Amino acid sequence: MHALKVTRADDFPEWYQAVVREADLAENSPTRGSMIIKAWGMGLWERIQGELDRRIKETGHDNYYFPLLIPLSFFAKEAEHVEGFAKEMAVVTHHRLKLIDGELKPDPDAELTEPLIIRPTSETIIGDAFSRWITSYRDLPLKLNQWANVMRWEMRTRLFLRTSEFLWQEGHTAHVDEADAMEETMLALELYRSLAEDFLAIPVVVGEKPENERFPGAVRTYSIEAMMQDGKALQAGTSHYLGTNFAEAQNIRYQDKDGGSSLAHTTSWGMSTRMIGGLVMTHGDDDGLRAPPAAAPRQIVVVPMLRGKPEDEAIKTYCAELVAELNKQSVFNAPVRAFVDTKDARPADKRWDWVRRGAPIICEIGPRDAAGGQVTFIKRNALREGEKIKSHTLPRADFVAQAAALLEVAQVELFTEAKARLEANITGELKTFADIERYYGTGENEREFKGWARVHWSRPAGAALEEVGTRLKALKLTIRNAPQAQPAAYGPCIFTGAPGVEEILIARAY
Amino acid sequence: MHALKVTRADDFPEWYQAVVREADLAENSPTRGSMIIKAWGMGLWERIQGELDRRIKETGHDNYYFPLLIPLSFFAKEAEHVEGFAKEMAVVTHHRLKLIDGELKPDPDAELTEPLIIRPTSETIIGDAFSRWITSYRDLPLKLNQWANVMRWEMRTRLFLRTSEFLWQEGHTAHVDEADAMEETMLALELYRSLAEDFLAIPVVVGEKPENERFPGAVRTYSIEAMMQDGKALQAGTSHYLGTNFAEAQNIRYQDKDGGSSLAHTTSWGMSTRMIGGLVMTHGDDDGLRAPPAAAPRQIVVVPMLRGKPEDEAIKTYCAELVAELNKQSVFNAPVRAFVDTKDARPADKRWDWVRRGAPIICEIGPRDAAGGQVTFIKRNALREGEKIKSHTLPRADFVAQAAALLEVAQVELFTEAKARLEANITGELKTFADIERYYGTGENEREFKGWARVHWSRPAGAALEEVGTRLKALKLTIRNAPQAQPAAYGPCIFTGAPGVEEILIARAY
Repeated sequence: MHALKVTRADDFPEWYQAVVREADLAENSPTRGSMIIKAWGMGLWERIQGELDRRIKETGHDNYYFPLLIPLSFFAKEAEHVEGFAKEMAVVTHHRLKLIDGELKPDPDAELTEPLIIRPTSETIIGDAFSRWITSYRDLPLKLNQWANVMRWEMRTRLFLRTSEFLWQEGHTAHVDEADAMEETMLALELYRSLAEDFLAIPVVVGEKPENERFPGAVRTYSIEAMMQDGKALQAGTSHYLGTNFAEAQNIRYQDKDGGSSLAHTTSWGMSTRMIGGLVMTHGDDDGLRAPPAAAPRQIVVVPMLRGKPEDEAIKTYCAELVAELNKQSVFNAPVRAFVDTKDARPADKRWDWVRRGAPIICEIGPRDAAGGQVTFIKRNALREGEKIKSHTLPRADFVAQAAALLEVAQVELFTEAKARLEANITGELKTFADIERYYGTGENEREFKGWARVHWSRPAGAALEEVGTRLKALKLTIRNAPQAQPAAYGPCIFTGAPGVEEILIARAY
Repeated sequence: MHALKVTRADDFPEWYQAVVREADLAENSPTRGSMIIKAWGMGLWERIQGELDRRIKETGHDNYYFPLLIPLSFFAKEAEHVEGFAKEMAVVTHHRLKLIDGELKPDPDAELTEPLIIRPTSETIIGDAFSRWITSYRDLPLKLNQWANVMRWEMRTRLFLRTSEFLWQEGHTAHVDEADAMEETMLALELYRSLAEDFLAIPVVVGEKPENERFPGAVRTYSIEAMMQDGKALQAGTSHYLGTNFAEAQNIRYQDKDGGSSLAHTTSWGMSTRMIGGLVMTHGDDDGLRAPPAAAPRQIVVVPMLRGKPEDEAIKTYCAELVAELNKQSVFNAPVRAFVDTKDARPADKRWDWVRRGAPIICEIGPRDAAGGQVTFIKRNALREGEKIKSHTLPRADFVAQAAALLEVAQVELFTEAKARLEANITGELKTFADIERYYGTGENEREFKGWARVHWSRPAGAALEEVGTRLKALKLTIRNAPQAQPAAYGPCIFTGAPGVEEILIARAY
């Protein structure tokens, strides 16, 4: 018996919803398409935010905050010129409500002269500020970041993975030239790789998106792609070199050292609450989430096994002392986050709550532990032996002394497990499009868990690339990226038979 | 000559705008009524946020995140029943844009069945969640907090003080009874007092709002009120005991220990980016902002006095070493935040930039300092002696050793200065309404800086209180709160002549 009613093997999408719900991560809200992020989900996001924010600041970016609402006219130029401009946005048209015949309605007398758009992303309004703030090469590079909520109207939503409103971080920078802007683009990409792999224990493939998957208006788009346990890919962060496209549209110019006027080269890059969906589908098991210790809001949870008896007091004292000692330890360059769960609930219920949330170490302290000076605990990332829960016991002093190491090992084990799965599920065996069709199957023969394929291609562009996209789409596949690590030589293009020039990853994706 | 072109004495509102602009705090945006919060302003907000968030968590609250958009129907009941319900809200009516005859417009085919409102505050949608999450007394207290952007349509805006969109924190809690909910209400109020006084060095008066100044739907509203240098009051945080009013409207019920069904008692409390406006008008001087050291994003800024000469390298090395040593020191329970400003700009310009931003200690390191192993610095909170800038010099080791103490002293001095001003500018001399009229003046005789008045009243209610409000409004005055510290006995009511029962503060206000 597992802690969730549905297993990954039974129904992966249902299992995902179950983890999100049972791990106290999020739930659907009465506002269609928007979610309520709950305590444990928000705790994870705050940890991700804190870690990435520190790195963003250390690399010379300042945080700013730009308006939620952007005048409609700011999108007009984009809509005319940028192919792929997405128009699914929330539009504010009125600024007052009024009781009309007893019914609350938008006040017809309070219609805005120009509608306002809830930001889907902030390139336009930040670019407008850049054009005012940048006058000389001395003002460059201008490197800023913003943590914000954004909105893109979505018809079919899934908690964390695709919601109309989501939380994210968006970096926006301006530079004197391509070399400097490209360095920034790759720096941001490396921040995301490191956040995913080193902090969240999610192995990713870093690479460049093909032309048809670029951010509209970008010259180059890079992504980190993570493999979910159903073999699908999740794009978990993107970094764009925008060339002078946005600078031209928004007149972001600077006086260079020779007194001439030049267009700035800009970048943008973003990472969102989607990452939490990736965390669930990378580390979750049939008992719930397994939070990577570096990111877990609580790393060690102590559940006192109270039974309404006189020895309860001794147990409570013992637990409080244990947590105080643990919190004096350091791990991942910060104090250990240990916690006693004193909620008025059955100890067994509390234990399972923390198993489902994925607290890395869960201690269960009963009268025997308190009297004997020991700690009984389970490791969430290695919860079971066969079907049985595996419990460990250590003398209290040893447990405290080893706590940091236990957490570090769990972090490494989670990464190693996910990395092995990623590597085992990328095939390099497909040489023709017929191979792809056979491998992934279609219709009734569609196969559920097939992972990704590394294939060679001739990097077709324009209409030829569109045709490739269409052929892949029929198999529900997309090109994820061209990994940074490339082989020494290429076979023929899997789509056209022409000489190959690049290795790309194809996969089903969220 | 001061660093700003306008002084407080010349034109206080203009001076305020100048500080906000020149200290890199914020600027108006192309979105009417919304601001762009810039690097130093955001840095201050992040420090405030970090400090308050820590205290909110330490007192047992978890962070959640609720949707930005709230269905219109959630406000319908409030609009019908709550007097003072504010209807100035941004209304989303469409979810798509469309190019119609070459012009980008809300797509008529994408009109929402039910309009959505950008949250002005989240009582309604959080209350709805409470009604689903709370079933038993075991679920109480439920204590949560959210950091969010909110929007209330404003016609006349002023950066930080009154903008349509602002950032804030809103606490929402549910309890078994009045006693527990009132304890929470007062706890939040104390969090705000301590944040203002101990962290931001802003002295405040803590008290209860009169009936006519309560949050719509609240049973009791408490506030912290700060005195600006023009003698006006700024409400800098409010805490509301909502009784069972919201619980009734939203059906927040729990099964009590005896199996009966009871309404929960709820609270809400908020503090916003408005606080930064209060910071400016409390600590600013004619040279710009003076940031309290505990909250300053950079506490010690080192400006290398480079002159394009060979000794520049030695200066740079010296500055880098100095900052590294400083950052190893601790102050206010955290590492010192020291920083070398290596921007490509004239040293004198950089110095004045940091003076205007109000970095607490600004070091200017020239060849003589580097060669002699000393540090030349200015204290921002005691910048001048007469008109002249007062500079200090210490041997480097002494400066490093004393850095924490220098910052601590500056923090105390800022608070002491503001506290003395607050106390000196509250009069207890007004006994009749004619005294008030004479003291504050009207029309041409209106006096600019008059501070606040402590007066006694009989706590009239209903229509009588409304009349008091009208009489005060004619003098541009409002009742701020009834301070927690009350005298032993009361004189007659200044409005009615009836026996006094309470001392209240009246003031002009932002």
